[in-house]
Amino acid sequence: MVRGPYRKGVQRRERIIRTAADVFGELGYLGGSLRAIADRVGASPATLIQYFGSKEGLLTAVLEDWTAQTKRSSMPEDVRGLAYFRQMRGLMEFHVEHRGRLELFITLAAEATNPGHPARDFIQQRYLTGRELWTGKLREAVEDGEIAPLTDAQIDAEIRTLVAVLDGLELQWLLGADIDLPDLVATYLDRAITRWTT
Amino acid sequence: MVRGPYRKGVQRRERIIRTAADVFGELGYLGGSLRAIADRVGASPATLIQYFGSKEGLLTAVLEDWTAQTKRSSMPEDVRGLAYFRQMRGLMEFHVEHRGRLELFITLAAEATNPGHPARDFIQQRYLTGRELWTGKLREAVEDGEIAPLTDAQIDAEIRTLVAVLDGLELQWLLGADIDLPDLVATYLDRAITRWTT
Repeated sequence: MVRGPYRKGVQRRERIIRTAADVFGELGYLGGSLRAIADRVGASPATLIQYFGSKEGLLTAVLEDWTAQTKRSSMPEDVRGLAYFRQMRGLMEFHVEHRGRLELFITLAAEATNPGHPARDFIQQRYLTGRELWTGKLREAVEDGEIAPLTDAQIDAEIRTLVAVLDGLELQWLLGADIDLPDLVATYLDRAITRWTT
Repeated sequence: MVRGPYRKGVQRRERIIRTAADVFGELGYLGGSLRAIADRVGASPATLIQYFGSKEGLLTAVLEDWTAQTKRSSMPEDVRGLAYFRQMRGLMEFHVEHRGRLELFITLAAEATNPGHPARDFIQQRYLTGRELWTGKLREAVEDGEIAPLTDAQIDAEIRTLVAVLDGLELQWLLGADIDLPDLVATYLDRAITRWTT
């Protein structure tokens, strides 16, 4: 019967992580104080330190949770070549339905333009991993003869620009723009695929 | 001989504004405390309050200064149609040379995804003004017969996507990406112009 209190501790830990994700998304990591998170959870800052060691420890837990949540719900990686990119409308629909998660990422990414930011490694790694995956898919499309040949430099530029379109349109949407985010991204991708094909 | 102390006050005010712009760019508005700004200037938070009334008053002064600095150095507005867009490589070169100013804007824009953020109105207004100017230039290109006809909805989507490309590539560059920012933007624009023309 030790499970009751243990489970309660796990639930409380999860609740703190989700609340911290909301607060960091709204106020940034640097602007979102332990006090603000503790108040919203109904605990003391000391309790948060007890669970996570430090504010940076809590940030790590938030980023791990974000990664796990996002992995479960993002685009299937086993789809080859152009078919992989054709799923991207679905990714945008997912973002629209999970605004808080998107806001957290964009806010931390912008904060992490400061070289000393504790999330900078995570954000840089996240961009790198995503770029490696996407350039691999575009290379597959070339290998499979779906599109005309591209140099490595061209593939890199294509993927960087695609990522920019997503981030930039997401930012406009988060700022309250009255746009159809999945539709604008799909339009950009359709044109890119047409251009790659011819 | 009262001018000495007056000029000194003006210089000190300007120094506080520039320092606050640095601190807000690095730590965000919410994360950048009056204490941090005061320490860097070598003054007390009370002195900052004396000059600007409040932290929000200081933010307003920073944004006014940002607007004045940017207006002086951004693309000439009297250039018509496509020629206006062809200057955009120069705008990117300006950003690369004024990293701090760009970092301030991107950081505040991401923070302002929070509806309660004090810079939200400014950021939204800034995007609106920019979009109105740029859609007007693209409309001129249609009117002058430089490019094929576009509907208002198409023009809006083109400009929103162009803004996204700029913001997104700027974010990657600020995060330390080894990219030629002016070159990537120019490549995107060259292709867009080709597409609009045919």
